[in-house]
Amino acid sequence: MSTSDKNLSSFLDIASDSDFSIHNLPYGIFSDTADGKRRAGVAIGEHVLDLAVLEAEGLLKLEGGSYFDQPTLNAFIDSGRDNWTSARSTIQTLLSADTDTLRDNQDLQSKALFKQADVTMHLPVHVPGYTDFYSSKEHATNVGTLFRDPANALLPNWTEMPVGYNGRASTVFVTGATDIIRPSGQLKPNPDERPIFAPCKRLDFELETAFIVGQPNKIGEPISIKNAWDHIFGMVLFNDWSARDIQKWEYVPLGPFNAKTFASEISPWIVTLDALEPFKTSIPNQDPKPLAYLQETKSDNSFDINLSVELLPENAESATVISETNFKYMYWSMAQQLTHHTITGCKVEVGDMMGSGTISGPTPDSYGSMLEIAWNATKPVELKGGSTRTFIEDGDTVIMKGYSEKDGIRVGFGEVRGKVLPALNFDFDA
Amino acid sequence: MSTSDKNLSSFLDIASDSDFSIHNLPYGIFSDTADGKRRAGVAIGEHVLDLAVLEAEGLLKLEGGSYFDQPTLNAFIDSGRDNWTSARSTIQTLLSADTDTLRDNQDLQSKALFKQADVTMHLPVHVPGYTDFYSSKEHATNVGTLFRDPANALLPNWTEMPVGYNGRASTVFVTGATDIIRPSGQLKPNPDERPIFAPCKRLDFELETAFIVGQPNKIGEPISIKNAWDHIFGMVLFNDWSARDIQKWEYVPLGPFNAKTFASEISPWIVTLDALEPFKTSIPNQDPKPLAYLQETKSDNSFDINLSVELLPENAESATVISETNFKYMYWSMAQQLTHHTITGCKVEVGDMMGSGTISGPTPDSYGSMLEIAWNATKPVELKGGSTRTFIEDGDTVIMKGYSEKDGIRVGFGEVRGKVLPALNFDFDA
Repeated sequence: MSTSDKNLSSFLDIASDSDFSIHNLPYGIFSDTADGKRRAGVAIGEHVLDLAVLEAEGLLKLEGGSYFDQPTLNAFIDSGRDNWTSARSTIQTLLSADTDTLRDNQDLQSKALFKQADVTMHLPVHVPGYTDFYSSKEHATNVGTLFRDPANALLPNWTEMPVGYNGRASTVFVTGATDIIRPSGQLKPNPDERPIFAPCKRLDFELETAFIVGQPNKIGEPISIKNAWDHIFGMVLFNDWSARDIQKWEYVPLGPFNAKTFASEISPWIVTLDALEPFKTSIPNQDPKPLAYLQETKSDNSFDINLSVELLPENAESATVISETNFKYMYWSMAQQLTHHTITGCKVEVGDMMGSGTISGPTPDSYGSMLEIAWNATKPVELKGGSTRTFIEDGDTVIMKGYSEKDGIRVGFGEVRGKVLPALNFDFDA
Repeated sequence: MSTSDKNLSSFLDIASDSDFSIHNLPYGIFSDTADGKRRAGVAIGEHVLDLAVLEAEGLLKLEGGSYFDQPTLNAFIDSGRDNWTSARSTIQTLLSADTDTLRDNQDLQSKALFKQADVTMHLPVHVPGYTDFYSSKEHATNVGTLFRDPANALLPNWTEMPVGYNGRASTVFVTGATDIIRPSGQLKPNPDERPIFAPCKRLDFELETAFIVGQPNKIGEPISIKNAWDHIFGMVLFNDWSARDIQKWEYVPLGPFNAKTFASEISPWIVTLDALEPFKTSIPNQDPKPLAYLQETKSDNSFDINLSVELLPENAESATVISETNFKYMYWSMAQQLTHHTITGCKVEVGDMMGSGTISGPTPDSYGSMLEIAWNATKPVELKGGSTRTFIEDGDTVIMKGYSEKDGIRVGFGEVRGKVLPALNFDFDA
């Protein structure tokens, strides 16, 4: 399969450390300044390849119609795996150094290739539903220790099911679309007094990935684990911004609500599972062995994806890496998550976004949230230039990156970058 | 205002106990057998008035375009309150006994009026987001008593905020669209043993209403309580089917998930707040007084809506009323719910459905779920014919009804009716 042929190269000049090699070809929705029209593109090196142009020129023909001159990728994704395979193969061939069609046609290149720096990225899919899982054992243990009881940090259901909750799809946005306004809500700083209404003082990020559902089911018809992988289209980076003080006060008994619905930020490029194929690995050993409906039918059920978080204070000269971790630490697989999600008959839809949950590794420098890194504000993080952080401050920018690399092939996610603005002023007498 | 003019009558023959008087005029989406095309209608007596026909005939002109020859009401609702007012007024006039336009035009009547018995109802809105609140103090107290600790049944945050959680919009369907398949999932019948995978044994209904968001906000811009009522279009009945045994095992710490995402069933007709105007009343006294952002700016912030639940076993001759309650018992108002939902900046969208939470009154015969009515299976409910129930059994049909009545004016919701089918057979070796 050409995907893993490391000798494959593009006629375009692509840096060896580029996230967007010819092996990647992630899908996004972009517009340029000419008319602002949203359509589908693929990232390649520093460029975006306009798929709507390829389609209009007859160079990208798929079953069932045309899909790329549209403001979301949902129709393309919905059209099914044969089209995913066919599109990837065609685009890879067109970008290859061995194919003259685009390589030798300057006119076509000028129509179809844009500099990423010159375009605006948009939400790649319409997101009908957003769910967030909680599938890192290290993260769940850390949070249980800090929020509840160190002696019983991991709740008894955690090793039996990929615990998750429904999030707020309306709040999922693509990085760059908006800054993060520090949320205000109910806090309870003094356990013996009533709560107050105030700006969140414990603003946090959560380093996650999310997968995008590629094929739906019907209500009442669970997706078996055997078929679950076929329902997944690809992955993005995901920053699940969280207000820890609001969360702590509100989350019992029905789960997080206000604390999680103000900003859920994704990277613009959907990296397909096909592109991640060379980086397959296994989830950790699951003990106890899951119930039958959750038993994976294959062993290569995770991916080796390097992930990092950088913090860039306002006016700082450079960002500080505050976490380096890996997707492979996740205890529950994406297939297990999807099967569990639908087991009682819940319908999932094309474009649904399924957050992994915070991805924490085994050591403090691999934790995926400030809550854990600064251990509930008891171990401030030192940044370049000498300032410290226990949570995220106004003016801070949080940057998440992710990539896989093996045998000379690199496939990356780009980044999620969010800047925090001060809280709104509320005037209740106005 | 004509809404509350009890002398207003229709040229159509409408029974005095009809839910769909000329004072009501709820909106829905229907199709008939002729072409199956979905379009908007209004319920009137035993009929549906086809709004697409009125629009095509030039009898219903609204600002900004045409809205009713569409498969959802979202565009109409999104078009704003002036159009809501104008449409209601025009439709009421056209149906009035004093207006000859439709009354004396048999040809128009044959095109525009359908028997409700002859049409199929569909989901009235596309539902971008679904949230379920937990705003009945009686229900929260009962559940806290049964699931947690009778001595501390109501958690400390409950009187400070309208506690809620994000539900699964993809699972909201209109009554009649599908039966309810008994869900299978993780149960933990024995606290000392591992969970099992099995059909839910404690299948329950939750008697709720839901309001439909009529105007959106922008991400990062909370809706103040002063403005919240203007963002609400109308209400439906809502059965939030629940699997109590699955819920009990899964819900700590992130809230209900599998237990609530298999069936969320609404009545087909959206009753507008304008139609409910004559039935305004006040929420109960709130002690402590809510924080400033949640303080209602008006006292008539609830509605007097009679609600009931009937249970009809398979082959039974008639249904048994097992609960009679009222929306006015709800502790938190819909405006408080909406303001709280958006306070950290969460975006709401037109068509969003906001469940009230189970509506329980002060006495056992007014509880809104079987969990409470049969008090966790300790007080079986006797049905007509002598059979009993602790939870819902296969073949049972649950019917919810609601109406307001005052000074000779009746405005009703119709019903939600769901029948339970046996669980699927799972074969994990297949």
